[in-house]
Amino acid sequence: MPTVPVRQQAAKVPLYRSVADQVEGLIEDGTLGPGSRVPSLRRLSRQMSVSVTTVMEAYRVLEDRGILEARPQSGHYVRLGPRCAPPEPDRTKTCEQAAALDTAELIEHTLEQVSQPGLAGPFGAAVPSPEFLPIRRLNTLLGRAVRRDPIASQSYDSIAGREELRQEVARRALDAGCSISPDEIVVTTGALEAISLGLRAVTKPGDTVAIETPTYHGFLQVLEGLHLNALEIATCPREGICIPCLEKAVDQGKVDACLVVASFGNPLGHSMPEEQRIELAEMLARAKVPLIEDDTYGELPFSDRRPRAIKSYDSEDRVLLLSSFSKTLAPGYRIGWIAPGRHRKDVLRMKLSSTLATATPTQMAMAEYLACGGVDRHLRKLRRTFKDLVRKMIRAIGEYFPEGTRVTRPAGGYVVWIELPEAVDSMRLYREALAERISLIPGPVFSASQRYRNCVRVSCAVPWSPGIEAAIRRVGELAAEQVGRR
Amino acid sequence: MPTVPVRQQAAKVPLYRSVADQVEGLIEDGTLGPGSRVPSLRRLSRQMSVSVTTVMEAYRVLEDRGILEARPQSGHYVRLGPRCAPPEPDRTKTCEQAAALDTAELIEHTLEQVSQPGLAGPFGAAVPSPEFLPIRRLNTLLGRAVRRDPIASQSYDSIAGREELRQEVARRALDAGCSISPDEIVVTTGALEAISLGLRAVTKPGDTVAIETPTYHGFLQVLEGLHLNALEIATCPREGICIPCLEKAVDQGKVDACLVVASFGNPLGHSMPEEQRIELAEMLARAKVPLIEDDTYGELPFSDRRPRAIKSYDSEDRVLLLSSFSKTLAPGYRIGWIAPGRHRKDVLRMKLSSTLATATPTQMAMAEYLACGGVDRHLRKLRRTFKDLVRKMIRAIGEYFPEGTRVTRPAGGYVVWIELPEAVDSMRLYREALAERISLIPGPVFSASQRYRNCVRVSCAVPWSPGIEAAIRRVGELAAEQVGRR
Repeated sequence: MPTVPVRQQAAKVPLYRSVADQVEGLIEDGTLGPGSRVPSLRRLSRQMSVSVTTVMEAYRVLEDRGILEARPQSGHYVRLGPRCAPPEPDRTKTCEQAAALDTAELIEHTLEQVSQPGLAGPFGAAVPSPEFLPIRRLNTLLGRAVRRDPIASQSYDSIAGREELRQEVARRALDAGCSISPDEIVVTTGALEAISLGLRAVTKPGDTVAIETPTYHGFLQVLEGLHLNALEIATCPREGICIPCLEKAVDQGKVDACLVVASFGNPLGHSMPEEQRIELAEMLARAKVPLIEDDTYGELPFSDRRPRAIKSYDSEDRVLLLSSFSKTLAPGYRIGWIAPGRHRKDVLRMKLSSTLATATPTQMAMAEYLACGGVDRHLRKLRRTFKDLVRKMIRAIGEYFPEGTRVTRPAGGYVVWIELPEAVDSMRLYREALAERISLIPGPVFSASQRYRNCVRVSCAVPWSPGIEAAIRRVGELAAEQVGRR
Repeated sequence: MPTVPVRQQAAKVPLYRSVADQVEGLIEDGTLGPGSRVPSLRRLSRQMSVSVTTVMEAYRVLEDRGILEARPQSGHYVRLGPRCAPPEPDRTKTCEQAAALDTAELIEHTLEQVSQPGLAGPFGAAVPSPEFLPIRRLNTLLGRAVRRDPIASQSYDSIAGREELRQEVARRALDAGCSISPDEIVVTTGALEAISLGLRAVTKPGDTVAIETPTYHGFLQVLEGLHLNALEIATCPREGICIPCLEKAVDQGKVDACLVVASFGNPLGHSMPEEQRIELAEMLARAKVPLIEDDTYGELPFSDRRPRAIKSYDSEDRVLLLSSFSKTLAPGYRIGWIAPGRHRKDVLRMKLSSTLATATPTQMAMAEYLACGGVDRHLRKLRRTFKDLVRKMIRAIGEYFPEGTRVTRPAGGYVVWIELPEAVDSMRLYREALAERISLIPGPVFSASQRYRNCVRVSCAVPWSPGIEAAIRRVGELAAEQVGRR
């Protein structure tokens, strides 16, 4: 094992956890294979220039994560066997034809079912469990903000949104490599309004929008609502949309706009490599095709550093970058934003006739929270939590799901995409699981052409517990029963 | 003068004010003409069975309002002369052709200009001045609600909106003669989202929507944003849309949907007589044309009782009734609602892809406020305030505007529509007034075909003061200058 100095993180992550994360990285990239012995406490302590106690703590964490096992008198080993994770799904395929959408009914029905409270296995809705969010702090700031400026709190805000909030958003966009002025930002009622405004600004009814496949069902709903056609482009579960495939469609004149997630797409959790982000920005700039970049999960990487947005490589100001605070801070506050580049005027126009302005009190509270500086600490904790939960989920799937199951390796976010053996009908699995109060979302919900009949998405944003483990085990059993019956 | 027993109002209106309002009614309907002597204190005291002191108080109020004048040794007289209000505008004309819209630029530019803070005469934006709204109470309830249920406050609310709020809305809809169950109501991010969802539910791009003329500019903005055409139908400043004119267009197959205000339309302040509401409901039911009824100002009548909504006469469940709390309680909370009748499912679908859910904390606070029972008292006070302000505005216009000016007699709300002599260019008047920090909205903003070049709308929702009177006087002078120069 190479000698690696411990990277000091800006955060107050305990040192032993940094060490654990780095050792796990070495296991994940294959430097330390399954079954191999990891360095002794003393040796790693020397290699990393940390105390033996720190290494002991780190190995204990890795045991808890199910990655290492201690063998008496012998040392620590990388675990073998059933906990080895299943392989990843292959790249999906492009649809040759753009199609008008007709999936709203299916999506609505499914979402309604999976959002029930009190489920034994709430793997359906992609919403962070409340205990992960800074609820009390935000509500305190909400009360304080409206008391401090009562008149503003009740007045129509400006169409573009509160200045203080736009300043904070602009400041945070620097982390994504984007230098955006507060004046270029429009606050929206959640990311969904941002997507809708962005699409309305750059398309007209009947136009075709290129999307990933599988893709976030919200995109399909917005496209259908706006009378737009969807063109599903082949997508790699690790790297996102296939740029040559997209380029081909663009060259054929099939594409009026693109709607893409570069960082931790839902459902795949992919992260587009930097060179591909650059390539995509350049290709679309050449073709003069507008790109709507949804960065909703961009602040939830599993690595130390969030990726740069495609917009940061956009020399033509043609990318409309959007995000929200619904997945990281407060879903119910309904605050998102869009930086529409050259399309700002059209986006503002659409906002004016969509909701006029976003609610003032929640904007005030959010601006306050972002300014007060607790957000980075919160996000670091959240990322670690989600990374841990996703890892546990993948292990559980490896352990409990039938042979032939494949599963994504998300680079961020908190959802996992499972490709089951061909014999499994995910609609049936969804219904059978729901009957046992376990929710998940069947694959067809994520496709304009209702593909992915043998896939499901599970959300990992609930605290792990024996009950949760039992629920995901039960899903595996139900799937295995379908395989067995064939 | 006939003997009229004093109507006892449910509210805690002082008795002398009731008496004053009734005497004023007699003057307004011509029972007591300009210059005539009103009953002596003793006589009215007998006629109305109230004390002489009460009548004295009432006459003093009427003097303050500029309606009566006391002549020494002779009694009280109805004022004559310059304070006589100008005549009302005539009915407007139907546009023969539906047209795609192209007014967004003009509207946006105007709204941006008139929304500046610190104007000497803020007659532009139709927003109630903050001192008229229960700000402190709402903010207290906001803080209390999020503390009481912190988890819900931060969670996505249901797509249809909070149950408690929908119950309160349903309860209040009874006052409009509508028996709507909470399940039939969808909470929206302000009335504008309700209008947009309603239109999207019942039309497709390219369809034609019949509207009043002049009409609320927000309607024009939404129609343009949704690629819908507008058909302007003749409208009476007292009674609203001309039903035979609308019926003609419907019979010619020109109309896919109607978007109408029955109660206190903006800018005309009209109130459709009950028999016409019935007629309209029946006509559209026969023709199977959906009606979107915007009742945003419905709770602001100048009489004791709010009118019934058209929806209350809708036997076919074809009317989509909508309203908001932005004009009566808290513009910045962004809470509206729609009761879409048979189109509920489509409205929910559009909501799901528009903003997903309305912000939770502000919904909680609003539900609490409506349930706590202060709202009716607040509304009674607000109506009296607006009635008084509108009256003062009409008198000021009579006094200060050039001959040939006409002005509406709103039956509720707080805006007044002024038809100036033909020679006056309202765009120029708007610019000249703005240069002196006085805002108003020029007529073309309220028309799909940019008519009403010699009209303006003024909002009366700011406290009256010598400064306000000076500002409206100055508008009159600027208009007179234009007439003189011709």
